[in-house]
Amino acid sequence: LIDVANNTEIRRGPHYRSNAEYLQALVPEASVVKGFNVLSAYALENGGLQGNKEVYIAGNDPDAKVKVSLLIRGAGFTPVDWGMIKAARDIEDIPLKFMPSWRRPVAVVFGLFLFVSLIALFSFQICRNIETGRWTENWSSMFNKNFNRVIAVVALWTLAFCYLPGLLAAYIQLWRGTKYSRFPNWLDDWLKMRKQLGLIMLGLASMHACMSVAYITPQTLAWVYRPATNIRVLVEAPNGTTIEKTMQLYDFEFNWRGELFLTLGAIATCLIIILGITSLPSVTAAMSWREFTFVQSKLGWVCLITASMHDVFLAWKYMFQYFGCFDILPIGPQYALYPTALCVLLKLPLLLPPIDNHLQRIRRGYERSSKKKQSNSA
Amino acid sequence: LIDVANNTEIRRGPHYRSNAEYLQALVPEASVVKGFNVLSAYALENGGLQGNKEVYIAGNDPDAKVKVSLLIRGAGFTPVDWGMIKAARDIEDIPLKFMPSWRRPVAVVFGLFLFVSLIALFSFQICRNIETGRWTENWSSMFNKNFNRVIAVVALWTLAFCYLPGLLAAYIQLWRGTKYSRFPNWLDDWLKMRKQLGLIMLGLASMHACMSVAYITPQTLAWVYRPATNIRVLVEAPNGTTIEKTMQLYDFEFNWRGELFLTLGAIATCLIIILGITSLPSVTAAMSWREFTFVQSKLGWVCLITASMHDVFLAWKYMFQYFGCFDILPIGPQYALYPTALCVLLKLPLLLPPIDNHLQRIRRGYERSSKKKQSNSA
Amino acid sequence: LIDVANNTEIRRGPHYRSNAEYLQALVPEASVVKGFNVLSAYALENGGLQGNKEVYIAGNDPDAKVKVSLLIRGAGFTPVDWGMIKAARDIEDIPLKFMPSWRRPVAVVFGLFLFVSLIALFSFQICRNIETGRWTENWSSMFNKNFNRVIAVVALWTLAFCYLPGLLAAYIQLWRGTKYSRFPNWLDDWLKMRKQLGLIMLGLASMHACMSVAYITPQTLAWVYRPATNIRVLVEAPNGTTIEKTMQLYDFEFNWRGELFLTLGAIATCLIIILGITSLPSVTAAMSWREFTFVQSKLGWVCLITASMHDVFLAWKYMFQYFGCFDILPIGPQYALYPTALCVLLKLPLLLPPIDNHLQRIRRGYERSSKKKQSNSA
Repeated sequence: LIDVANNTEIRRGPHYRSNAEYLQALVPEASVVKGFNVLSAYALENGGLQGNKEVYIAGNDPDAKVKVSLLIRGAGFTPVDWGMIKAARDIEDIPLKFMPSWRRPVAVVFGLFLFVSLIALFSFQICRNIETGRWTENWSSMFNKNFNRVIAVVALWTLAFCYLPGLLAAYIQLWRGTKYSRFPNWLDDWLKMRKQLGLIMLGLASMHACMSVAYITPQTLAWVYRPATNIRVLVEAPNGTTIEKTMQLYDFEFNWRGELFLTLGAIATCLIIILGITSLPSVTAAMSWREFTFVQSKLGWVCLITASMHDVFLAWKYMFQYFGCFDILPIGPQYALYPTALCVLLKLPLLLPPIDNHLQRIRRGYERSSKKKQSNSA
Repeated sequence: LIDVANNTEIRRGPHYRSNAEYLQALVPEASVVKGFNVLSAYALENGGLQGNKEVYIAGNDPDAKVKVSLLIRGAGFTPVDWGMIKAARDIEDIPLKFMPSWRRPVAVVFGLFLFVSLIALFSFQICRNIETGRWTENWSSMFNKNFNRVIAVVALWTLAFCYLPGLLAAYIQLWRGTKYSRFPNWLDDWLKMRKQLGLIMLGLASMHACMSVAYITPQTLAWVYRPATNIRVLVEAPNGTTIEKTMQLYDFEFNWRGELFLTLGAIATCLIIILGITSLPSVTAAMSWREFTFVQSKLGWVCLITASMHDVFLAWKYMFQYFGCFDILPIGPQYALYPTALCVLLKLPLLLPPIDNHLQRIRRGYERSSKKKQSNSA
Repeated sequence: LIDVANNTEIRRGPHYRSNAEYLQALVPEASVVKGFNVLSAYALENGGLQGNKEVYIAGNDPDAKVKVSLLIRGAGFTPVDWGMIKAARDIEDIPLKFMPSWRRPVAVVFGLFLFVSLIALFSFQICRNIETGRWTENWSSMFNKNFNRVIAVVALWTLAFCYLPGLLAAYIQLWRGTKYSRFPNWLDDWLKMRKQLGLIMLGLASMHACMSVAYITPQTLAWVYRPATNIRVLVEAPNGTTIEKTMQLYDFEFNWRGELFLTLGAIATCLIIILGITSLPSVTAAMSWREFTFVQSKLGWVCLITASMHDVFLAWKYMFQYFGCFDILPIGPQYALYPTALCVLLKLPLLLPPIDNHLQRIRRGYERSSKKKQSNSA
């Protein structure tokens, strides 16, 4: 009957939502059970060794479902009952879904990446070339130096965007005085995106770490090193003649800001990796709900603050003075901090004991509105 | 009976494949169930806290198997039925198998490593020393500089070797006009090796990344940096006298090739890590078959191309001119690309729409040979 | 009844260990089943999507437990039977337990970290400043240079401390001549800590690797590079005047010790990551007991030796000469090796064939004491 349900050539009327439902109507005494649609024929042939082993079934006859379940289990898969035959249509839709939870967060981060890339392109290439009048310089640093700055900013923004929706949700609960009302759709979607945003951030942060340790020298990031020495030397030209010039002899020791910058970066990377590991399904399953919440919330906040301080110590001297395009645009390490600053500003009031207590009471089920209470007690 | 089956001192005749089978023949009315052989006595004593919890059982009497299953489940393990008592011998063989799926790929990659090491030893040490006549130099760079080059080449070869067998299989299917024929054994083995090859490649690539970011300076990899400045300076000898010499003052900024080289390397590393994470059992189990195929096939190809371009931008200027041993041998970044080039050459024809369509039709079950069709319909 | 068991307002007498037990005594004919206490109300509301899905139940009536089990299974959780109603108290204690297996190892490693930090603070800051009489220097290197050295030492000690308890256990078994006696409590606790110690070590080693590759230059770690060149140059002061000074022009090629130092560090990092990956629950579950033991024991020892040799090649020239505080204190790379040396000293005798055979015999169940044998055979 499985094959029949999938391959039947009889055209069904439009008010049947799936072939299986139509078949059940055609032959009411038969026990139509829908299943297997999730797996490709290729996977079935090859023993379905890779990927999800769940097979969704639907049907009106419990006994028939038990039989089909045993069949599926015998083939090495796990049957999951999706209910009555009406659900067959939902099962048919599954193979069309492709990484449904990843589309939106990837789009969001890609949008952020494009936005920050355009700012960086304008600040570091176009604007600087207007300032200096030399249009042939600095273009090559687009591929790594600027790309690296851009993904660092995007990673920090993305991490902050993992904690913003939770803060907004807390304020909505405080405002409404109850937890029994649905959040607006955009906030709901945002809350569901956090795991994916966190994992994308992990990828960006790793790439940033990898490129930075290869790039960092007193010449490329003078801010975090001790000052170089200017020496007057005879420079040889290719034709053998020499000219006296002032060159820089670099000091490869970090200054105290550089020491903190590097250490905080390494600690943040480590914390991000711990956040990533605890998101692995088998690790999550081995943790209690309280442990999982501690790691993802408390450790996550520590990570956000550490990564932001890493940025602060990089640009310590320039943090409160503009020096971007013609001294009017903020520089990278400045706007990298905007979302973190917003998170901290929103978080601080929630840490005040009276507000914190009130929020905890709401989350335990307390409701402010007296009408609702009366209707509940009635 | 379990103990009896395992510890019996009665010598069995040669035509019984296992003690359990012999016991069943001796006492036909008894219900012999074979089990537990997979676990060490030590694991059983310690509650078997680590490793696989599956216990394989075999026996002719279903009721006895149910009882043994309950016993095993009660001890915290998962019983897996391997069938009739004849299978007992197969269960006995399991503890002797040790990482069966890893032996061959480890041997293959180790063979590649030895092969490339010998080439590198000849090119960089022996041949260069013959050219210069100085036999005491460069030997120390064997331990890291050359080792690092060798594992980079081996990693790229291994990644290409993950995609070669799939391409060969496609050509065999096109040639034979059917998917219902077995591949030759060597190809079958190779196809089954891909996961392990990929994970070994992940280890090699990580080690290469780790060593490279520590190693990379304008002195050790001048190709990817802006040109150094030659300066004439007074060099102090240990005895206090000075000699005028030409020294190099390095420029620590990458040139455009270096910027691309580094960025592509970081992106490839990130993609390799994603490939590795999706190979973890619990992550694979959470993905649909289509998602898993997308990551391992599409992302894997992107990774192969990215890693190869990383190599191309390293040796950009020297890519099409030999300058190895006496100008006759290819250099590392050249032969690193041979397997990737082979993959791309084999892949391109398969992307042509008519060939692609034909291959898809074959994979859906179409068969070219008309004889087979007739015999099927008969 | 679940609600009743949890929310009952009747005060129970002190000799009842839990509300559920008291309720069972109050109404003997009722079937009290205790459950659900592990999950927070929040998790239940949100479908308990994250974290452990196990729900522990306890009760005297098997039929009632089966019914509650079905109820729990229907809600998407896995019921785990903890036995009679007396166990209810143990279930109630679970939510209070927070990462119980992590508290002790975190405390141990944090203690080590403080201890080594104090030594490093004394050696590198205080003592050196006493020696030189300059109290304003070197303080900034506390944040990274010294922090990095400290976590390197702590990581190596922690790795050695994963293998020490197993060695001590072997000696206790040899001494007592039996494996059927309990180890002292401190050793038992230490044996159970090994997995957590290993994972903390993985975090420390990763951070050390990350910071080191960003830090390593011929100026910051001269020991592992070829000697720098002293040049006499005119140094420009900020006011434009020049003074002749001797400066160092660094050679960025490693010497042979540096090449080995770096390669062994990369190999050790790779091995540590493999040890970490095989500790992931889903990977452990996919390995046989023999494979898991091989990786964690054999590969772990290789990793310990590799990481220690990484340290030996760093300080090769200074390994057997003190040059710490006033030439009386050992230096970091020296005391980093003490626990490894202890492990190797304890391991070597166990590798001698007669001792090894005897230990294997004891572990298979042999007992030396003849009295015990008699009482067993009686």
